[in-house]
Amino acid sequence: MQLQLSTWPEVERYLGTSTGIVMPIGSTEQHGPNGLVGTDAICPEVIARGLGEATGAMVAPTIHVGVAQHHLGFAGSMCLRPSTLIQVVRDCVVSLARHGFDRFFFLNGHGGNIATIEAAFAEIHSEVSMLTRQARRPLRCKSANWWDSRGVSGIGKALYGADEGSHATCSEVSVTQYACPDHIKSANFEGRAPAYSGIHDADDYRRRYPDGRIGSLPSLSTPEAGKRLVEASVRDLAETYRAFLNAD
Amino acid sequence: MQLQLSTWPEVERYLGTSTGIVMPIGSTEQHGPNGLVGTDAICPEVIARGLGEATGAMVAPTIHVGVAQHHLGFAGSMCLRPSTLIQVVRDCVVSLARHGFDRFFFLNGHGGNIATIEAAFAEIHSEVSMLTRQARRPLRCKSANWWDSRGVSGIGKALYGADEGSHATCSEVSVTQYACPDHIKSANFEGRAPAYSGIHDADDYRRRYPDGRIGSLPSLSTPEAGKRLVEASVRDLAETYRAFLNAD
Amino acid sequence: MQLQLSTWPEVERYLGTSTGIVMPIGSTEQHGPNGLVGTDAICPEVIARGLGEATGAMVAPTIHVGVAQHHLGFAGSMCLRPSTLIQVVRDCVVSLARHGFDRFFFLNGHGGNIATIEAAFAEIHSEVSMLTRQARRPLRCKSANWWDSRGVSGIGKALYGADEGSHATCSEVSVTQYACPDHIKSANFEGRAPAYSGIHDADDYRRRYPDGRIGSLPSLSTPEAGKRLVEASVRDLAETYRAFLNAD
Amino acid sequence: MQLQLSTWPEVERYLGTSTGIVMPIGSTEQHGPNGLVGTDAICPEVIARGLGEATGAMVAPTIHVGVAQHHLGFAGSMCLRPSTLIQVVRDCVVSLARHGFDRFFFLNGHGGNIATIEAAFAEIHSEVSMLTRQARRPLRCKSANWWDSRGVSGIGKALYGADEGSHATCSEVSVTQYACPDHIKSANFEGRAPAYSGIHDADDYRRRYPDGRIGSLPSLSTPEAGKRLVEASVRDLAETYRAFLNAD
Amino acid sequence: MQLQLSTWPEVERYLGTSTGIVMPIGSTEQHGPNGLVGTDAICPEVIARGLGEATGAMVAPTIHVGVAQHHLGFAGSMCLRPSTLIQVVRDCVVSLARHGFDRFFFLNGHGGNIATIEAAFAEIHSEVSMLTRQARRPLRCKSANWWDSRGVSGIGKALYGADEGSHATCSEVSVTQYACPDHIKSANFEGRAPAYSGIHDADDYRRRYPDGRIGSLPSLSTPEAGKRLVEASVRDLAETYRAFLNAD
Amino acid sequence: MQLQLSTWPEVERYLGTSTGIVMPIGSTEQHGPNGLVGTDAICPEVIARGLGEATGAMVAPTIHVGVAQHHLGFAGSMCLRPSTLIQVVRDCVVSLARHGFDRFFFLNGHGGNIATIEAAFAEIHSEVSMLTRQARRPLRCKSANWWDSRGVSGIGKALYGADEGSHATCSEVSVTQYACPDHIKSANFEGRAPAYSGIHDADDYRRRYPDGRIGSLPSLSTPEAGKRLVEASVRDLAETYRAFLNAD
Repeated sequence: MQLQLSTWPEVERYLGTSTGIVMPIGSTEQHGPNGLVGTDAICPEVIARGLGEATGAMVAPTIHVGVAQHHLGFAGSMCLRPSTLIQVVRDCVVSLARHGFDRFFFLNGHGGNIATIEAAFAEIHSEVSMLTRQARRPLRCKSANWWDSRGVSGIGKALYGADEGSHATCSEVSVTQYACPDHIKSANFEGRAPAYSGIHDADDYRRRYPDGRIGSLPSLSTPEAGKRLVEASVRDLAETYRAFLNAD
Repeated sequence: MQLQLSTWPEVERYLGTSTGIVMPIGSTEQHGPNGLVGTDAICPEVIARGLGEATGAMVAPTIHVGVAQHHLGFAGSMCLRPSTLIQVVRDCVVSLARHGFDRFFFLNGHGGNIATIEAAFAEIHSEVSMLTRQARRPLRCKSANWWDSRGVSGIGKALYGADEGSHATCSEVSVTQYACPDHIKSANFEGRAPAYSGIHDADDYRRRYPDGRIGSLPSLSTPEAGKRLVEASVRDLAETYRAFLNAD
Repeated sequence: MQLQLSTWPEVERYLGTSTGIVMPIGSTEQHGPNGLVGTDAICPEVIARGLGEATGAMVAPTIHVGVAQHHLGFAGSMCLRPSTLIQVVRDCVVSLARHGFDRFFFLNGHGGNIATIEAAFAEIHSEVSMLTRQARRPLRCKSANWWDSRGVSGIGKALYGADEGSHATCSEVSVTQYACPDHIKSANFEGRAPAYSGIHDADDYRRRYPDGRIGSLPSLSTPEAGKRLVEASVRDLAETYRAFLNAD
Repeated sequence: MQLQLSTWPEVERYLGTSTGIVMPIGSTEQHGPNGLVGTDAICPEVIARGLGEATGAMVAPTIHVGVAQHHLGFAGSMCLRPSTLIQVVRDCVVSLARHGFDRFFFLNGHGGNIATIEAAFAEIHSEVSMLTRQARRPLRCKSANWWDSRGVSGIGKALYGADEGSHATCSEVSVTQYACPDHIKSANFEGRAPAYSGIHDADDYRRRYPDGRIGSLPSLSTPEAGKRLVEASVRDLAETYRAFLNAD
Repeated sequence: MQLQLSTWPEVERYLGTSTGIVMPIGSTEQHGPNGLVGTDAICPEVIARGLGEATGAMVAPTIHVGVAQHHLGFAGSMCLRPSTLIQVVRDCVVSLARHGFDRFFFLNGHGGNIATIEAAFAEIHSEVSMLTRQARRPLRCKSANWWDSRGVSGIGKALYGADEGSHATCSEVSVTQYACPDHIKSANFEGRAPAYSGIHDADDYRRRYPDGRIGSLPSLSTPEAGKRLVEASVRDLAETYRAFLNAD
Repeated sequence: MQLQLSTWPEVERYLGTSTGIVMPIGSTEQHGPNGLVGTDAICPEVIARGLGEATGAMVAPTIHVGVAQHHLGFAGSMCLRPSTLIQVVRDCVVSLARHGFDRFFFLNGHGGNIATIEAAFAEIHSEVSMLTRQARRPLRCKSANWWDSRGVSGIGKALYGADEGSHATCSEVSVTQYACPDHIKSANFEGRAPAYSGIHDADDYRRRYPDGRIGSLPSLSTPEAGKRLVEASVRDLAETYRAFLNAD
């Protein structure tokens, strides 16, 4: 059930049955010569929809831009500063909490967001913890990266081994090829992508990783692999989400 | 050309031909008994894509959540505070400017965003104006509401007359019915929606406008009308966008 | 009744009769060769005082500096960033609300402030709307530009026609000549002022509009015209203000 | 020379002769039963004008609202949070610095502003000190309280002795009686005003000082005393201001 | 070499030999019935000093308060909001960078700080990445938790096994007993501490973990174990720090 | 009683007897050729501990970095912007207030912090004063500089006379020599230190005061003098602190 495609009376009825919501959050940044700039937003969006179908969960609209300052050396990359993203997450959670939502499941598509999402959760809880002795309505926020599941990593490892890499990975490019079959790109890869050696500012990133990839060979990506990865991610995350809903 | 569906080398080539970009910006908020919560994001998104096809413009991902505090009395509505949205717009513009984009065309779907978008533009220009005597690269930002065009308002007036209303309008519900034909909703409208009498906080809004609509009767909405409205909006905005690109 | 010229027991008595207050807000910025830097603050201040006399309304002290980054290319112009002015408006409203004021009528003298004032109102309402289900005391904020009245624009049109312009207008210079008769300036105008062609940053503004004026010929301004304009503005705004007080 | 009453070419000519500017800054807050709410803004404004006449200095418009949270228990008092006022002072200084002003003389009318003004100066210098090794144009900011001069305190002591007090003082009420002769108020003072015993939040202030005064008996105030105080303050501050201009 | 115990000429000489600096960062929060409130600050401080002796590194003063909102249900706990700590880390790094430091090694003592420290690094890099094409002086920031080393976890596992726990751990209490031998506390532990089941706001934390500990039995702590842990941590971190200094 | 060396049950017991707490706050900045960079943090820390012993007061961990932008021209100096330090002080006070602390005694070691500490107090009170009519639990915050006592200044005057100076003073260097006897430094002083002539930005400071000192000759400092100064400061501050606790 997608929030954007529901009416408010439908949302009100949903709240009678569940107070959980899935919040896809991604990034808009280069993903190498054949990866889409939207990869990190498309992946959690398509998986969140699958998760919504599998569990009946409400799915919020995707936050498309994240903390990607290190990719700004490549055309098309966008970035929110961490201090901005903290306020965005805070405002989204606080406004939905007014309606009765109290289980916020951030389905994340970008490693660079992880720390800021956690910091935003602590910022939200700080407002309650610092000022009162009794929170009126305890909120729970949880984040999960779509690729952090046994099923997903098993497939990636089996299909790509050491060519999976850590940015513009074979797996994430595959997911976008499955999600956007009309937008499969090809590229001539000049040699092996350099292995991970740290991430600092944007100029430094471009110098270390000249075509944007880190350690990956995404010419191996296929939409069929993408389909398997999405299904595995949905399966594993549905379990996580249900446990989150039922947890104390 | 959609940014999310492009690779960075494609964006780099685009920048060799144009430095303009269309930025769809909407809201996630109640739209009456049969309007979608995502109406104000769906409308500028579908029209932005049409505009991209008509003019060859690059289209950025949609900002889905806007300034909608007054709708928080209805389930599912989300809100960014103006101070948050100013930073979001600022960060998006500043990071894209690094690549060479310098004509930012915000295609807006929500009246409640207009003031904050303008304030964000002034915030961006203030950084340059306050601190230097010579901006290195002058930016231009412009916003346009998808419904503010002769063609669009002509159709709305002809089809709906006084039933068009000013929130959950017949026109915007029609556009979403065209864009999302699998998600057309129906509702029993209890009497006429009250006319506009001011917008303040959320409790007040709900008291004034009990089912969320202002002055509209969107049972009259149809996907066919939506198609005509989208085409008219694209046609008129394409003209505006081209003039913006060529302007000094 | 001016707040600055009242004692606190007088304000307390006033609050027993009315909870409305007029907040003049202006700008400090160039107004062409013979216009005063303070024009946009002087105009709403003098009109606010007239309004106070006509309606018995309390008048707050003038906010003299506004969002004028685009004028910073001309000596003497001052500017608050929108993010700063939002906090100023918020603090002023919130602190007066403590005493019982709940109808805030911002009488604005500068077009560049309009968006930020509206954004500030939404910021104020967001605090209430996001966090509670029942605002204890609903506030109403409204802004009105002194020149946006039938009476005022009728006079301007009759007297100046196309020479009225849109910055350093004949009308606003006339108002300051009426308000400050000892400070009437003269200037040699070099040719016609260029027509409006957009406002961006400060360097760009100075390039487009070399002496600061947009489309106006304020050598036509007179204190007599200023007197008529002030009286017309007060008359029309008094009506607006009374309706605002009585409105729900 | 008042900034608000000058044209931009006049300001430009002024900058050819001096880069100093006087910035009156006050507060809007209760001043006891017969003191004006605007006392702390009126005093520095009238003295700043005298100072401008005595020294030829440019005088900026008055900042009317300051840090007065402790007075919010009395009707009509307004307050900027320190974090807001820091940004206001910063924006005013930074925008005037663009034109070439580099000696900022804040003439202060309210004790509660002193700390925040100093903090704002450090905030302004921090931007330069943290980020560069060579400031392009060193700014100097200085604040002076109008009452902190030998001449002023001598008169106060001679006329009022122990009845001078420390809020709603006989001297400041006298200055406003001189500046606003049409707005002299009278009141029945119920007993002696309590002596200073600390300032914390607003409720606490009202409990300690029930009619707003601290230690003063302003029924002794006269416009004649106000005239002497203004003249003494201008005389002493003119000396301070000239030294500031010439200082390294 | 401790920064606080050096003169500025000594620091200048140090910068001729190294541009690295160790930044201890901790927290002030409950650590169960016999753990010190300062545990998370004391541990990185003592280890940082060891690291300074082992490698010759400069050691900055300890940041004592961190993100600990979840501990506010227990007396003595203090907390910075993430948005505050981001600015603290940013200001410390930016001001030291002015002198030439460019390798910032944050030695962290509190799990709740990890996300915010990473977010602060991204905030710092964003300033450079968003605004320029060429950073003048690339900074490197790295954080390491004192307990995240093979040597440390080996000792903890060998000595305490499942009683180590995850808050108020046997290991951290041991380190403070070694560092502060005059402040070894004892307590009657009422039963086994509950295992980790999530961390949200402060009231929730206290309900889940009634005496503050998570899964630990720190009556097993000894100063002798603390000594071994400090030495192991210093040994492992010295290796990490040297690699960081030499890294690109 | 030091907070960092207490357990939470000990803090809870303390709160049964007193709600006061001493907050040492300092700075990390150059102190001339033989003064320690940590002087302004070491002094209030050692005196706060003495004060804790003399009065039984709880002593919080030291805030080591303060507002020292003007010292950034000398290696090793660190700085928080005033806007950052205000949030730090606010968060520390608000989180301790939750436990029941309500008398906050900031023992300050750095003149550059004074204004910002006062501004932070007003920021804290503003939250209460602006939004409610009844503060639930009135807080009291007070700051005292360790050197501002009759006893301390008497000793300084007697021992050093005109050589005491105003930065890197003989007294403060003496206190650190007493507190850190293993870190007494010597230096060749090149001539007399220049007298105070204003403090602006960092480059300016270094130009005015080439070796960092202002007016002092700290080759006269001795640990014996330091001991006397600490004892005198503790004695005088204990009196101040006790009065603060008992005050309304």
